[in-house]
Amino acid sequence: MDSAVKDGGLAPEGDAKIDLVAAWAPVLSGIAAQLAADGSVAGRRIGIILPIEPKTAYLAVMLADAGAEVALAAPGALTRDDVAAAVAGRGVATFARSDSSPDDEERFYAEVLARRPEVVIDDRAELVRMAHTTHREALPTLIGASEETTTGVVKLRAMQRAGALEVPCIAANDANCKHLFDNRYGTGQSSVTAILDSTNLQLAGKRVLVIGYGWVGKGVAARAAGLGARVTVSEVNPFAALEAIHEGYAVAPVREAAARSDVVISATGVPSSLPAEAIERLPDGALLANAGAVDDEIDVAWLRRHSTAAREARPSVEEFVLPSGRSVYLVGDGKVVNLSAGEGHPVEIMDLTFAVQALSARHLLLEGAGMAPGVHPVPEAVDRAVADAKLASLGVRLDQLSQEQSEHFVTWQ
Amino acid sequence: MDSAVKDGGLAPEGDAKIDLVAAWAPVLSGIAAQLAADGSVAGRRIGIILPIEPKTAYLAVMLADAGAEVALAAPGALTRDDVAAAVAGRGVATFARSDSSPDDEERFYAEVLARRPEVVIDDRAELVRMAHTTHREALPTLIGASEETTTGVVKLRAMQRAGALEVPCIAANDANCKHLFDNRYGTGQSSVTAILDSTNLQLAGKRVLVIGYGWVGKGVAARAAGLGARVTVSEVNPFAALEAIHEGYAVAPVREAAARSDVVISATGVPSSLPAEAIERLPDGALLANAGAVDDEIDVAWLRRHSTAAREARPSVEEFVLPSGRSVYLVGDGKVVNLSAGEGHPVEIMDLTFAVQALSARHLLLEGAGMAPGVHPVPEAVDRAVADAKLASLGVRLDQLSQEQSEHFVTWQ
Amino acid sequence: MDSAVKDGGLAPEGDAKIDLVAAWAPVLSGIAAQLAADGSVAGRRIGIILPIEPKTAYLAVMLADAGAEVALAAPGALTRDDVAAAVAGRGVATFARSDSSPDDEERFYAEVLARRPEVVIDDRAELVRMAHTTHREALPTLIGASEETTTGVVKLRAMQRAGALEVPCIAANDANCKHLFDNRYGTGQSSVTAILDSTNLQLAGKRVLVIGYGWVGKGVAARAAGLGARVTVSEVNPFAALEAIHEGYAVAPVREAAARSDVVISATGVPSSLPAEAIERLPDGALLANAGAVDDEIDVAWLRRHSTAAREARPSVEEFVLPSGRSVYLVGDGKVVNLSAGEGHPVEIMDLTFAVQALSARHLLLEGAGMAPGVHPVPEAVDRAVADAKLASLGVRLDQLSQEQSEHFVTWQ
Amino acid sequence: MDSAVKDGGLAPEGDAKIDLVAAWAPVLSGIAAQLAADGSVAGRRIGIILPIEPKTAYLAVMLADAGAEVALAAPGALTRDDVAAAVAGRGVATFARSDSSPDDEERFYAEVLARRPEVVIDDRAELVRMAHTTHREALPTLIGASEETTTGVVKLRAMQRAGALEVPCIAANDANCKHLFDNRYGTGQSSVTAILDSTNLQLAGKRVLVIGYGWVGKGVAARAAGLGARVTVSEVNPFAALEAIHEGYAVAPVREAAARSDVVISATGVPSSLPAEAIERLPDGALLANAGAVDDEIDVAWLRRHSTAAREARPSVEEFVLPSGRSVYLVGDGKVVNLSAGEGHPVEIMDLTFAVQALSARHLLLEGAGMAPGVHPVPEAVDRAVADAKLASLGVRLDQLSQEQSEHFVTWQ
Repeated sequence: MDSAVKDGGLAPEGDAKIDLVAAWAPVLSGIAAQLAADGSVAGRRIGIILPIEPKTAYLAVMLADAGAEVALAAPGALTRDDVAAAVAGRGVATFARSDSSPDDEERFYAEVLARRPEVVIDDRAELVRMAHTTHREALPTLIGASEETTTGVVKLRAMQRAGALEVPCIAANDANCKHLFDNRYGTGQSSVTAILDSTNLQLAGKRVLVIGYGWVGKGVAARAAGLGARVTVSEVNPFAALEAIHEGYAVAPVREAAARSDVVISATGVPSSLPAEAIERLPDGALLANAGAVDDEIDVAWLRRHSTAAREARPSVEEFVLPSGRSVYLVGDGKVVNLSAGEGHPVEIMDLTFAVQALSARHLLLEGAGMAPGVHPVPEAVDRAVADAKLASLGVRLDQLSQEQSEHFVTWQ
Repeated sequence: MDSAVKDGGLAPEGDAKIDLVAAWAPVLSGIAAQLAADGSVAGRRIGIILPIEPKTAYLAVMLADAGAEVALAAPGALTRDDVAAAVAGRGVATFARSDSSPDDEERFYAEVLARRPEVVIDDRAELVRMAHTTHREALPTLIGASEETTTGVVKLRAMQRAGALEVPCIAANDANCKHLFDNRYGTGQSSVTAILDSTNLQLAGKRVLVIGYGWVGKGVAARAAGLGARVTVSEVNPFAALEAIHEGYAVAPVREAAARSDVVISATGVPSSLPAEAIERLPDGALLANAGAVDDEIDVAWLRRHSTAAREARPSVEEFVLPSGRSVYLVGDGKVVNLSAGEGHPVEIMDLTFAVQALSARHLLLEGAGMAPGVHPVPEAVDRAVADAKLASLGVRLDQLSQEQSEHFVTWQ
Repeated sequence: MDSAVKDGGLAPEGDAKIDLVAAWAPVLSGIAAQLAADGSVAGRRIGIILPIEPKTAYLAVMLADAGAEVALAAPGALTRDDVAAAVAGRGVATFARSDSSPDDEERFYAEVLARRPEVVIDDRAELVRMAHTTHREALPTLIGASEETTTGVVKLRAMQRAGALEVPCIAANDANCKHLFDNRYGTGQSSVTAILDSTNLQLAGKRVLVIGYGWVGKGVAARAAGLGARVTVSEVNPFAALEAIHEGYAVAPVREAAARSDVVISATGVPSSLPAEAIERLPDGALLANAGAVDDEIDVAWLRRHSTAAREARPSVEEFVLPSGRSVYLVGDGKVVNLSAGEGHPVEIMDLTFAVQALSARHLLLEGAGMAPGVHPVPEAVDRAVADAKLASLGVRLDQLSQEQSEHFVTWQ
Repeated sequence: MDSAVKDGGLAPEGDAKIDLVAAWAPVLSGIAAQLAADGSVAGRRIGIILPIEPKTAYLAVMLADAGAEVALAAPGALTRDDVAAAVAGRGVATFARSDSSPDDEERFYAEVLARRPEVVIDDRAELVRMAHTTHREALPTLIGASEETTTGVVKLRAMQRAGALEVPCIAANDANCKHLFDNRYGTGQSSVTAILDSTNLQLAGKRVLVIGYGWVGKGVAARAAGLGARVTVSEVNPFAALEAIHEGYAVAPVREAAARSDVVISATGVPSSLPAEAIERLPDGALLANAGAVDDEIDVAWLRRHSTAAREARPSVEEFVLPSGRSVYLVGDGKVVNLSAGEGHPVEIMDLTFAVQALSARHLLLEGAGMAPGVHPVPEAVDRAVADAKLASLGVRLDQLSQEQSEHFVTWQ
């Protein structure tokens, strides 16, 4: 089986979308040219698990265009069939269809490992964990992995602590070019606009509760305030709470703040961040959305069990009538809202992130054999190269420290 | 002919959308209850021309529910068939289908006038002008009109100056509850999010040129800045230019600013606000959108004639390759972008606007016979009642001036 | 008596300050050159009442330098002796000393009128009212007046309604170049920084109550929010309240909001805007300041009568211990805080305002004989000339409407 | 010699200022009560070097009030005589007078060490370095030090690397309660308002160049933008440059940006950050200020050598006429502007910082004997206690993670 996609005939549509990403992703396009020129990935085997949409597709395609043998898989819920068809049509072994069963997906991931990738670009450490457990036959030829998600890095570190990680893994998530931008600016904008787009409601004048004031919460709060909302933050960490106060937000416990919030956005990565007791206190008509990484940050299970009625109010918006008679509206089914009710991160953010991934994969191919098993930071040179390319694409120039200035921090005497 | 809609079977879908608007439009819903109770519109004939989407549909439906005989028409390009079907199903004589020809539309408008409306809620003064020219048989029973648009008010004033306006017309557009909010906050948010939603691009860090710094331009600039853009304003009015400067925006002529803008948003109401010479100087990849009321604010005709290639890059986004080889992307075909690439104003804005319309229609029905022909402002009591209802829906309370405070501005001696 | 100042020896200090204003006021300096060149004020008699500080002084001096015979007076509380000395030393008949009694001031104003000014630049209509009542001998030679303040214009309009105004008066306050900028940007910035400078406190994270959301309140709220405060607005006007809500501020009645405000800034122009009942509810340590035009917007008399102790906590900051045992801190004695605890409007704002005044005075000298008695708007040409000069000083250029664009608003058929 | 202050008679003035700080510093006041109650500093010897102004004075006084034997010294340039007198009058051995010579200061510091402090609260590692070199007799009784400044920590780390640091030193600067707030919010606000207060100029509409986008630069840029300025950032670090871009600022090299900047604020900690070549390109009338820690971030020496004229334009503002004929205005002599032209950090910031210092000193007294020589972070319990006390003073409450939520991050299988 060379590829498994739903309908190859959809490829032209997917092709157009991928081409647009290529035009709007100057950093990754620059790296595409570099890899094609330096031959660093030519003939090398790369496995990828990522949602299949135009931005991820372009990463797979540009690696293939540079000569790599790329195999790609994704769960059905995160697969767009036209894009999958287009990727398959461009020489990537693609295993993904929107109607796949869990069994299908297990087979699809196995197909990727069956191609014996030297490097994997992994999501939630799926491929790495399979290669260390059920598919150990893939381990000898695996040089290493580059991991996209925070969750995946947490798992890899747990494996490392347990002495169970046998290859070097680059924590792409920790690159400056990723963590300084993707959640704060990418999730910030795309979560807020996904909510507005799904509801046709206005944010100006709304009371917005942001649960969690990490990078995601900071981004969501800034964008909500920038659109005229009044923001309250809930936090468990006193330093983050003080930062929120200093930015001009109110801070209050979730249960208390919920009672006077028109919109609630969770951004914690922790289950039950908006618990039943808080949902019960929401005013009539409140909107609920989850901008965080964990599906049950809002206690949707409770909502489903205890609401007296539920209906789709608009696409991606479900109304629940609570026992109190008040309604709440859940956007994107409580799943990460910029994907469940939108198209995910903006192109520019993924341009940075996938540039880090492409160069990390290249680094593993060239240097991975000499790297110890375990979690490694993104090489500084990779991070810097991506930032420099991004600045160049913007036409922005830096200053340089003079020799004297560099020597400014001198001895203590 | 009682109604002319494309497919009555679509009504259930439209009904759900209208119900959601009712839930999210507390001011208009309050007026619905008031009208039903006071009998002021019962048995009275009201004609309406407005785009047919859920928010306008609710205005027509709530008037019908209060006992009015309502007739409604719209041009095909601004008609959603499911909503039209639902409105027709709820007892409104509805003449609108998305596939209508210009001839159809002329007939549809005539159908509205054939029902001899006592009051019309008009758009661009279409019905009023027909009643003064080609359909003068409708004039004797016409008490007056309430006009939604700036353009319509301009035309009505021109008629009045020419001595050709024979009925009182309320300039709903000039109500505080409309002009202070709809363009600044409604168009501001919805234009910016429509562009982002259509493109999946990020605004943070983008250089945005806003042409025109009236209410629309002020709203667009504020929302763009609130999402992290760097804003430049172009203006012909020196006072508006100075206001923009004081808000922290750069000000520069269009032709000059275009050369260093990633996104250009027109907000002038004046044709060729982004002229060919400016388009030619745009950087590669620039996005163009029109948030203003006039279709050719961006010189799209020139784009079509002079581009060497054109293609749909994404839904609502067209790429044009210029003779220079650079591409520009036009969002929403150069037509008002929050409608052409979005759902128009947020619900809350139309709640205010249509509350003004409903109470203005009521005022004309009750008092219009005693009003002189000509353009009238919205009655202060109407404007105030809408504002008070909106504040009440938000749970916001005002202070009251004491007697002494009211008398503060005293005699000159 | 040619001048009456406290100490002529202080002139050098005052001179330096005036010179700096000249350097930082490009619009007024440009008009100075114009007047000197066109001879329009040469030999003409101009009377001025304004606070005497470097910015006002420059207005008087530049008129004198252009050949006018200028007489200037001010109340003692608003006189800086070094500046008065400098102005006197530069050929302006100056009647102002910081230690003047009310009797002195009456004489000083009379001295200005004794010089039979052809035009007066007036403050609160003081000179105009004297010339219409106690000093009618000055009326025959008085061509007209240009009035600086809102309060003065209110009084002049009352006189006009009473049929008691015998000369044309230009309402300088209503110029676009004044009212669009002075309160929103000038009072906004200078009130907030005066409070911070007087107290050495931080605004980020503070709960700030702004009473009144007119131009001053809008400016104060924007600057407070811009420095990280959480703003609540109190209003009596429902439209202003809704605007505040849409800008992202909370709105609540004064008595309720006071209980949870760290800083209260009045901006109403109405006495007792912060009444006793609200003061009693303030949290311990609250700061109170008045950014508005009326001295008793905060009920300072009540504070003085009912506090159990009072002391100067810092220069310009007085602590009052309330019967509850809580302290509040009053900045600038409850008088307009940007003057009582600061230096008033920034130079740039007065550059615009006094440019309007200088050109309005010129207009009265040249055209006033043909103007009817009553309140007149600032001539459009004056307003426009000032705006154009300001833009030129910033290096900012405008676009121009083409002939076709100007003709865009056409007939109704 | 028990104290050396200029004029003990000034004590009452200083006392009032210190009392006001006590009222406005709830966290430190709470710690004062705690220390008095727990006896942890009673009879212990503490030496302090800090600028002597009301906020630092309160730190010394509250330690003395809790029973410590405190000795305090400061350089003359950073000493306010009334405050020094008050501190001396409250039982602190105080060695500081505004007219001190370098020789005096050396003697003053020696007096502090002569009292054999067990713990020093140090500034730029002055006392620690003396105790390790010229005054080694003080070393045996020295348990450790708490260091206030970044510069001091750099020096201590250099000593540690050189094997020359013989006592434990707590890097107070690295506490969350200090570094997250003092530069971003304290320096941000106080630098910008110091410039405005010194000049009476307006920030709205000004083009502001911020050199360096670390914590200080971030704070200055945010406050400048919040007051209506258009901000450009200059950086040497590509990640910081990208952050600035994403916040909506322009980024450009210093020499290029200077040519179009009305205000330049350095925030780098690096000499010659605004070099001669950039100064020469500034527009006429530009304002220059240094918000950073190093005195010669602006090349003031070059300005003094090459300007054709110089004069004090206003207090704290010096005008330099460049060879080009253009003038620039230097605020606060190029020294850290919130101190040289203002009162330093707001009270609230120092409340946090000195709370960290007081608890760090307590920690060293109680636990320092068991700590290894070298630089130590602030104990987490100290940092947390300060944050909790600050939140309590604001009436802000946090959420708590449930057991299940805490266990959310689980094993990799």
